[in-house]
Amino acid sequence: MKVFVIGAGGNVGRLTIEQLKVAGQQVTAGVHRAEQADDLQQAGYQAEVFDLLSQPQEMAQQLKGYDAVVFAAGSGGKTGADMTILVDLDGAVKSMQAAENAGIARFIMVSALNAEDRTKWFAIKPYYAAKFYADEWLMHRTNLAYTILEPGALTFDPGTGKVSTSPSDDGSKSISRADVAAAIVASLNDPSSIGKVIPLVSGEQPIVEAIKNAK
Amino acid sequence: MKVFVIGAGGNVGRLTIEQLKVAGQQVTAGVHRAEQADDLQQAGYQAEVFDLLSQPQEMAQQLKGYDAVVFAAGSGGKTGADMTILVDLDGAVKSMQAAENAGIARFIMVSALNAEDRTKWFAIKPYYAAKFYADEWLMHRTNLAYTILEPGALTFDPGTGKVSTSPSDDGSKSISRADVAAAIVASLNDPSSIGKVIPLVSGEQPIVEAIKNAK
Repeated sequence: MKVFVIGAGGNVGRLTIEQLKVAGQQVTAGVHRAEQADDLQQAGYQAEVFDLLSQPQEMAQQLKGYDAVVFAAGSGGKTGADMTILVDLDGAVKSMQAAENAGIARFIMVSALNAEDRTKWFAIKPYYAAKFYADEWLMHRTNLAYTILEPGALTFDPGTGKVSTSPSDDGSKSISRADVAAAIVASLNDPSSIGKVIPLVSGEQPIVEAIKNAK
Repeated sequence: MKVFVIGAGGNVGRLTIEQLKVAGQQVTAGVHRAEQADDLQQAGYQAEVFDLLSQPQEMAQQLKGYDAVVFAAGSGGKTGADMTILVDLDGAVKSMQAAENAGIARFIMVSALNAEDRTKWFAIKPYYAAKFYADEWLMHRTNLAYTILEPGALTFDPGTGKVSTSPSDDGSKSISRADVAAAIVASLNDPSSIGKVIPLVSGEQPIVEAIKNAK
């Protein structure tokens, strides 16, 4: 499978391309800045700048020939809320339009836990709103074979290979980035994850099994 | 007709309630702050706080019994881009959900010229993005009888009673707020405007006729 990972310069994106490479997949890293592409190329990856502020038609040129797209980009709030709406929402939607335009069916979206429920948006509400509208577009305005992953608060803990896809009120609200990356890889390998919205927090179920059993 | 104007504390909203009152319509002003409601009540209007950061269920309580909603609110960029996504996009969508929830059919949206075309977004791109996704929701995710008005750059010029609904590349890109308000009133009175997206710039056609003839 040829996979294009948008946002491979970010923490989840970087772990995803590493794990995809280990798993023997053909992967291209789409990154924000030219220096990131250089660094990844030095590390042995195929990497190129993928500009989320450009138009879908241009983006589609770069996506041609791939089997799947992973959207793992995030403005991270660092560049202000302007970028939240232009990157996390409009950049995501343009990526979907570009994928469709390029004839790609499969699309994995890294969203956020509870993005679908406004009453549970906390702290960085604009980020949740961006994720909500991007997810809504993916589900209702595209024909993409999507999987939406909704990780809780991201940690730098080492991966455990295990997660829970049914967070409880008194249970974990966080997950390591490495386990999110593993869930992305598991989703790409499991067509039964198509059309699903899957919460992800730290837990006790092996990741491949958790993705397979997710409702 | 009983009309609820969301954002009546803003410039376009204020002119809209004035013109609706002159036209003999029953109008309620929904405003952001309690002092604005007090001021409008003193001026003889029915006015209440309408909180765009609350949930659709609560908002629906306030909209019950009205025949039409006008969304003329805008964060105005003054409070930062956080408010652009939470007010101009999510506040607008929650207003639509609240209107549907309250059994209201008619919804007039004040959008922005060229909001539907990313290549023409300029200057305040987050605002255009918010308008784009709000308009998309209104057209594709609701059953509301909508009219989307797309004014060009808003001026404080006196109303002329005339507009153009087919801006040309070398023609006017602006319009007075008073003429936008008149176009809102004309749209409310003209069922043929339902389901239309109508650009508005200064021009030479009487407003009622321009709304009637809009494509």
